Amino acid sequence: MQLSLKIALAVVAFCVHCSAQTYQRLGTCPTLGCILPPDQADFLPGQKFDIRAEIHAPLNGSEAIRGYTNPDANFTLSIERQGGSPQSVTAFFKQAEPRLETWNFTWYEDLFAHAAETPSQVRVASKAWRNVALYEPGQYIATLRYRNGSQTTLANWTVRDIAPQQRAKNVIMFIGDGMTTNMITAARLIGHQQINGKYQTRLALDQFPTLGHQMTHSIDSFITDSANSATALYTGHKSTVNALGVYADSSPNKFDDPKVESIAELFHRLRGGGVGIVSTAFIADATPAALTAHTRDRGQYGAVVDSFIHGITNYTWTTWSGPDVLFGGGAEQFYPGKGSFQGKDYYQVFAQQNYTVVQNNTALQASDNSSKHLGIFSVSNMAKWLDRNVYPANLNRSKTAPDGSNASAIDQPGLKDMTLKALEILQTRHSDDGFFLMSEAASIDKMMHVLDYDRALGELLELDDTVKATLAWLEEKGELNNTLVLVTADHGHGFDVMGSVDTQFLNAQDNARDKRGAVGTYQNSGHSQYVVANSSARVGSDQNLVYGPGVNFPTNWDPRYTLYSGLAAFPDFREDYRVNKNGPRIPAINITGFDNEDFFVNYVDAVTGFIVNGTLPVSADQGVHSLTDVPVFTRGPCTDLFTGVFNSIDVFYGMAECLGLSRTSPS
Amino acid sequence: MQLSLKIALAVVAFCVHCSAQTYQRLGTCPTLGCILPPDQADFLPGQKFDIRAEIHAPLNGSEAIRGYTNPDANFTLSIERQGGSPQSVTAFFKQAEPRLETWNFTWYEDLFAHAAETPSQVRVASKAWRNVALYEPGQYIATLRYRNGSQTTLANWTVRDIAPQQRAKNVIMFIGDGMTTNMITAARLIGHQQINGKYQTRLALDQFPTLGHQMTHSIDSFITDSANSATALYTGHKSTVNALGVYADSSPNKFDDPKVESIAELFHRLRGGGVGIVSTAFIADATPAALTAHTRDRGQYGAVVDSFIHGITNYTWTTWSGPDVLFGGGAEQFYPGKGSFQGKDYYQVFAQQNYTVVQNNTALQASDNSSKHLGIFSVSNMAKWLDRNVYPANLNRSKTAPDGSNASAIDQPGLKDMTLKALEILQTRHSDDGFFLMSEAASIDKMMHVLDYDRALGELLELDDTVKATLAWLEEKGELNNTLVLVTADHGHGFDVMGSVDTQFLNAQDNARDKRGAVGTYQNSGHSQYVVANSSARVGSDQNLVYGPGVNFPTNWDPRYTLYSGLAAFPDFREDYRVNKNGPRIPAINITGFDNEDFFVNYVDAVTGFIVNGTLPVSADQGVHSLTDVPVFTRGPCTDLFTGVFNSIDVFYGMAECLGLSRTSPS
Repeated sequence: MQLSLKIALAVVAFCVHCSAQTYQRLGTCPTLGCILPPDQADFLPGQKFDIRAEIHAPLNGSEAIRGYTNPDANFTLSIERQGGSPQSVTAFFKQAEPRLETWNFTWYEDLFAHAAETPSQVRVASKAWRNVALYEPGQYIATLRYRNGSQTTLANWTVRDIAPQQRAKNVIMFIGDGMTTNMITAARLIGHQQINGKYQTRLALDQFPTLGHQMTHSIDSFITDSANSATALYTGHKSTVNALGVYADSSPNKFDDPKVESIAELFHRLRGGGVGIVSTAFIADATPAALTAHTRDRGQYGAVVDSFIHGITNYTWTTWSGPDVLFGGGAEQFYPGKGSFQGKDYYQVFAQQNYTVVQNNTALQASDNSSKHLGIFSVSNMAKWLDRNVYPANLNRSKTAPDGSNASAIDQPGLKDMTLKALEILQTRHSDDGFFLMSEAASIDKMMHVLDYDRALGELLELDDTVKATLAWLEEKGELNNTLVLVTADHGHGFDVMGSVDTQFLNAQDNARDKRGAVGTYQNSGHSQYVVANSSARVGSDQNLVYGPGVNFPTNWDPRYTLYSGLAAFPDFREDYRVNKNGPRIPAINITGFDNEDFFVNYVDAVTGFIVNGTLPVSADQGVHSLTDVPVFTRGPCTDLFTGVFNSIDVFYGMAECLGLSRTSPS
Repeated sequence: MQLSLKIALAVVAFCVHCSAQTYQRLGTCPTLGCILPPDQADFLPGQKFDIRAEIHAPLNGSEAIRGYTNPDANFTLSIERQGGSPQSVTAFFKQAEPRLETWNFTWYEDLFAHAAETPSQVRVASKAWRNVALYEPGQYIATLRYRNGSQTTLANWTVRDIAPQQRAKNVIMFIGDGMTTNMITAARLIGHQQINGKYQTRLALDQFPTLGHQMTHSIDSFITDSANSATALYTGHKSTVNALGVYADSSPNKFDDPKVESIAELFHRLRGGGVGIVSTAFIADATPAALTAHTRDRGQYGAVVDSFIHGITNYTWTTWSGPDVLFGGGAEQFYPGKGSFQGKDYYQVFAQQNYTVVQNNTALQASDNSSKHLGIFSVSNMAKWLDRNVYPANLNRSKTAPDGSNASAIDQPGLKDMTLKALEILQTRHSDDGFFLMSEAASIDKMMHVLDYDRALGELLELDDTVKATLAWLEEKGELNNTLVLVTADHGHGFDVMGSVDTQFLNAQDNARDKRGAVGTYQNSGHSQYVVANSSARVGSDQNLVYGPGVNFPTNWDPRYTLYSGLAAFPDFREDYRVNKNGPRIPAINITGFDNEDFFVNYVDAVTGFIVNGTLPVSADQGVHSLTDVPVFTRGPCTDLFTGVFNSIDVFYGMAECLGLSRTSPS
């Protein structure tokens, strides 16, 4: 437990009301002087980062100071290693004095101010020091003095004492986006058979030797999104919602925020090892993006894709020359058009850098493993496991061909296909110097958002199947003991299963209150009917043969008795507790128009069910992320670094330590 | 992974539809021949248990067999150790042949049959073999033959290969009833302060070195209650909802079900060590009860209390002479009257067995540690931490004095008080032979049931504070390295936190849809306001002084910005997201009458909030348990037995192994 110095704690606590709750002036900055990275930041020795200082002058609102309408441009930022003496940051890092920047911004102090449309205005003076690093482990104090030195903001920084010894050759990091322990439990229930309370088969995750929990909260809000949580997992620095690989500042420029170096960038810069990025989302989505992008706005999809191949080009930054493997959806950022960066053809951009470009599973499997690979298999997020395997006709319905032709993307790989191919390529290209692979089951989250629990659990079982296949692959290649395999999530959804539902009885009732009588709790939940073979199928442990031998998925997605499951936060919706056979669910629709967001039950969803009024704001058309700690399963070297309960950033430090990526002196 | 023999799997799977879903003929018995313990049961070597065989003859319904209306009374039950030859159970265990028992029962095949009031009738023939044990580790097969041997039911049993070496002197088992990872995360948020995403203090649980997950499901339904989950944790045998220390049979007698020996009984019989039982519930409640009671009906409260002192008296069974410590609520089973067993005065019964009897915290703290103790501090469940510490006036309102006088129970101890006193007594009486203490934070569950999240999280923080104090006590006594400390739960509730609520804004809106606009998600969740001192209080890490130095609870339970939290299953309720200052919440009330259960929003609850219609049956006045795996935190000896993901029964085997309670031959 790292305790702050008392003085800093008092300073921060003093003004904690100033930076308000629903809205914040700048979440990391409760006073009028801001240091980024802020107080309590940790660093890997030698990790590159930028520094920004901001001085705020509120013009109105509760923080306004009479006679102080222009921020003090003569602020100073100094730094000292504990026990040393303070130096200006400019001198400490041997940089030229940065130019002064100024800008204005507005924010709302609370919901009343928002409703009344009375924003608070702030003027800012700022400087940024870029591409610096701290090498010597220990405590550092950054001090920002402003208003003639009368005001002080402190930031206590810790350079962790991590020696540069390498313990693993490879790291494979699986992220089940939005995946909680509750969902893992539910997936086991529908995919694995038990007899008298004893499971006859288990999840691959269940067989990991080491389990930990990580805390997912953002730096300035207790609920995270996938951007800042990925930033924490990859860089060891928590950040703000929507931010990728940066601390969010208050400037209007979305690309000038102070950056922190990611595990992929470190591994590439220091070891030259292979990097693979695989996701079932559109590939510019937050979780893959945070490995190379540095912007506080995750919505800059075109620029994210450019960062995959070119790295950071607007500032001096750590070197980057593209991953060995980039597999996912999101073709709209690749074919030339309004979705792609500067309208360019990014298939061509990658091909010009000697990438093999593939757009379907057949081409993926057939391609040579010796070259770098770009595989983009659909517009937007890729098709879900349930649609690819159980309701394949749905693939025809979506016009998501990766060439932008508005045809259907029929021949899409699954997460397992992409991951195993990525491993082959990485192993072929980096059998000596090792690899880092991030593989994301993105649509656990996306399907939880839309209350489509069947598809979400299908994605989770596909992740589990991918993990199982990965372990088998590692063993076959003799890399199992060289490789840290880590499976975790970036946040939760408030999902759980509370019983079963007799859907036939529900359907036979003619009013909402009677329909609820179809729910069975406690002893009336009974056994899972998802693992019972249809009468035409064979019984026993091989009843899952439709998906291939030894693979565990439900044998029946539409049994009479389904799961009584739900979320703890939801928009208005109607529920019939049955699988959505026609594709992903849309629980709520806008009942007013584009400008006035007022979502109510989708009139074509779950029509035989009953309506539940939401608890989320009526502007919400789907569920939201939740607070819960998420599990971290590890096996291989360094599992000792992932036991018990820890912070999300500790996942980064554990992986970086295991790969030997700290540098305690400039090389 | 223990796989069943193929033949047994096929037999069970064949008829899995026969024993239906919402209702079951007998959950552990999908065919018409039933063996208890059933297929897949595990045993500790030398653990005492009963065996029952039942033959069912359904008279009507889908399972009826033409011409077979009387169950075959000439059935045989044999047993063989794998590789050995079968013997009749009677001969194998050297018992007299048990008498034949017969009875009838009825059940509903599904909700339609229930609605139409068309029960299915079953006639039963049965025998029971009592107080047996298997010593030699290995696989056993029990075979039930009936209908002239034409029908066969198999049960594969495993006597685990656990050597009788002792590794710990003491075991302290904390149970947070209904406690999930989600709740732990929420409790940390409101009880501990973070600065820029880094917690300045942490939960005691967060500092445990080892974390595991246990699967809580019942033997015959995937949602458990606290009775059968406690049975699993204490005996290594999963059971049915409402069952305590037995496998539920189909007989009308609630006390003749086949028993399994508990960790408390084993520890007492084999080592003569001390046993302590502490709970904030009424002490006859399921979690404390399952340590000594053996009945399939947890509602037999008087008999449960009798079992605490006398053990099992209706059959030959393992020896028992009362725990060293029994602390909790539930005075209505102690003062003479309709709640007590046979109307007797159980205060007197315990006193006659030389128990020191105390009824308030002052007497508890003052009493001598050398004698056995009974402490009963209130009628029903004990007062909640929030009421005892923040809203103490509520204690006056409840007329729960433990003497049955209808006065108020003002001077109640908390979980920490009871636990530390229990430890002093156990250590005084058993410094040589060690002790087993179970300490339950019962009202995490009870307050989650009634959607009173504030009180539930208060109870969780009290548990954490108790764990912290326990570790300090163990260290002071030099017992820290001798003692396995385990903290777990028995099941979950589908709770999570999704953001914050501006309760002031909510209150100012005049309709339900606008009130929902007070919810802030993602970046709008902001920081926890529960740890911010009121303006009159001091800032910094000592702002919790109201509860004592170094103790972490919220400093403000009624901030403007509260938690946007909820359950995934709920009755109709109204929500204002504010603390219930007048005592535990009652979310829904019966709007029809006693006979027709139809619950709707409690008209005096959360009156400024908005109504959410439930998803539970309208007969539900509160929330229900959920499926999620629950965490297992361990420290001390044997933490290697509690890593990764395991079944709830493995908690028993781990504790029993650590205490050296297996016996591989009759002594």
